[in-house]
Amino acid sequence: MNNSEIGDKHNTEPVKYLSKQEAEALEADLLDDYRFGKQQLLEILGHSCAMAITKVYPLRTLPRKQPTVLVICGPDQNGAIGLVCARNLRSYDYEPTIFYPKRSLDVIYKDLTIQCEKMDIPFLSYLPTEVQLINDAYNLVVDAVLGIEAEFGEVKEPFASILATMKQIKIPIISLDIPSGWDADAWNPEGIYPEMIISLAAPKKCALQFTGKHHFIAGRFLPYDVQKKFELNLPVYPETECMVEIQDGKSTL
Amino acid sequence: MNNSEIGDKHNTEPVKYLSKQEAEALEADLLDDYRFGKQQLLEILGHSCAMAITKVYPLRTLPRKQPTVLVICGPDQNGAIGLVCARNLRSYDYEPTIFYPKRSLDVIYKDLTIQCEKMDIPFLSYLPTEVQLINDAYNLVVDAVLGIEAEFGEVKEPFASILATMKQIKIPIISLDIPSGWDADAWNPEGIYPEMIISLAAPKKCALQFTGKHHFIAGRFLPYDVQKKFELNLPVYPETECMVEIQDGKSTL
Repeated sequence: MNNSEIGDKHNTEPVKYLSKQEAEALEADLLDDYRFGKQQLLEILGHSCAMAITKVYPLRTLPRKQPTVLVICGPDQNGAIGLVCARNLRSYDYEPTIFYPKRSLDVIYKDLTIQCEKMDIPFLSYLPTEVQLINDAYNLVVDAVLGIEAEFGEVKEPFASILATMKQIKIPIISLDIPSGWDADAWNPEGIYPEMIISLAAPKKCALQFTGKHHFIAGRFLPYDVQKKFELNLPVYPETECMVEIQDGKSTL
Repeated sequence: MNNSEIGDKHNTEPVKYLSKQEAEALEADLLDDYRFGKQQLLEILGHSCAMAITKVYPLRTLPRKQPTVLVICGPDQNGAIGLVCARNLRSYDYEPTIFYPKRSLDVIYKDLTIQCEKMDIPFLSYLPTEVQLINDAYNLVVDAVLGIEAEFGEVKEPFASILATMKQIKIPIISLDIPSGWDADAWNPEGIYPEMIISLAAPKKCALQFTGKHHFIAGRFLPYDVQKKFELNLPVYPETECMVEIQDGKSTL
């Protein structure tokens, strides 16, 4: 295949932004028909998110002396991807700290937690309510709190308080898939304003209302049949990259 | 952490080449103590192997019109990593074909096989004994036949015949971890001569006798404590790369 043939594969149709229902159907297909494993998907997605973060916020550009990153993990899948992301960031010489207040009993999630602990990643026992402490201590916050499963307006404690704190954070927030407190289908004008959204595998409708700086799609693994079935019109991932930045539904690369 | 600090992390000690026993102890630690999952490790390693292949044999440099790669998979872990490698190569626009004559009953391996089938990767039902057909049809052969578990001199059918065919192959062979037919601790002068070895996580003793062109270590995930315990002295992975080329025990990058 030569370059012009690869070039021909660029989609001319705009990238599809999935509804919550479509995203859930896609995930079910991946697990049931395409036989992807949960552990496998978490690893692919968490690794790709870490790679996207290194692209936008390389070590040398971080304002603090130490390359600190606060990763806030929720109890479900989004939080597990945050754990994998933190572990990968650690291996790229970032210094992640994890806040994971409600730990899942799922064995896969427990193992991901142990992997982080064994990589000497510190876990916070509480989130400072004095937000200036967060702004001063970290370069970035990774929001892996709530994902596609979260119901709009139904955020329970401790996550309601966490989101209230996150709303006041002045350093860049990077949201995995769905900014926490938003709905998959629509933003929450009262919610957080991330500087970056990393859509997992395909963007969700809420990202259409994203006004931050960087929108990436991460996770280059979707079988072509799935892409066709859901009419995703994904941008072409450059070379061997596992993530791609998009603007107005088109690749910026 | 600034660049000079990263620079300080270069190991001055030579990279350790693990004996079979040490490599097995390391894997047991990863699974038992560090709680890595099998599915997770296969994905990390298979992806890293594919990335290493794209580095040495980029699409544009392949001699054939089609970017064909023959991936020969054995029944055990090496074969499963070959399946993941093939799937990742496919997503980088290579055209892998898989020969997987003895399929494992392990559910994880079965799922990895289905993922390849669903990515429209063709599976050969037999390996041509006329080796010229292989030389003409493919650019590369990935040897994922036998790994660390194989006992020297105990290769059974159909793999003895497969190795006999592979010995005559003139296109580059890329061996995952251990060239098939070699022992983890020593090469086999009567065996195949790969052009490239991709050591999984850490090199094995047999690679000291490797006379081919490229030796990579793939899989950037080993916790620092494990690296210390086994005195691995791994080369520093550049930036966010998941693989690194080494020569005489030192990184070439």
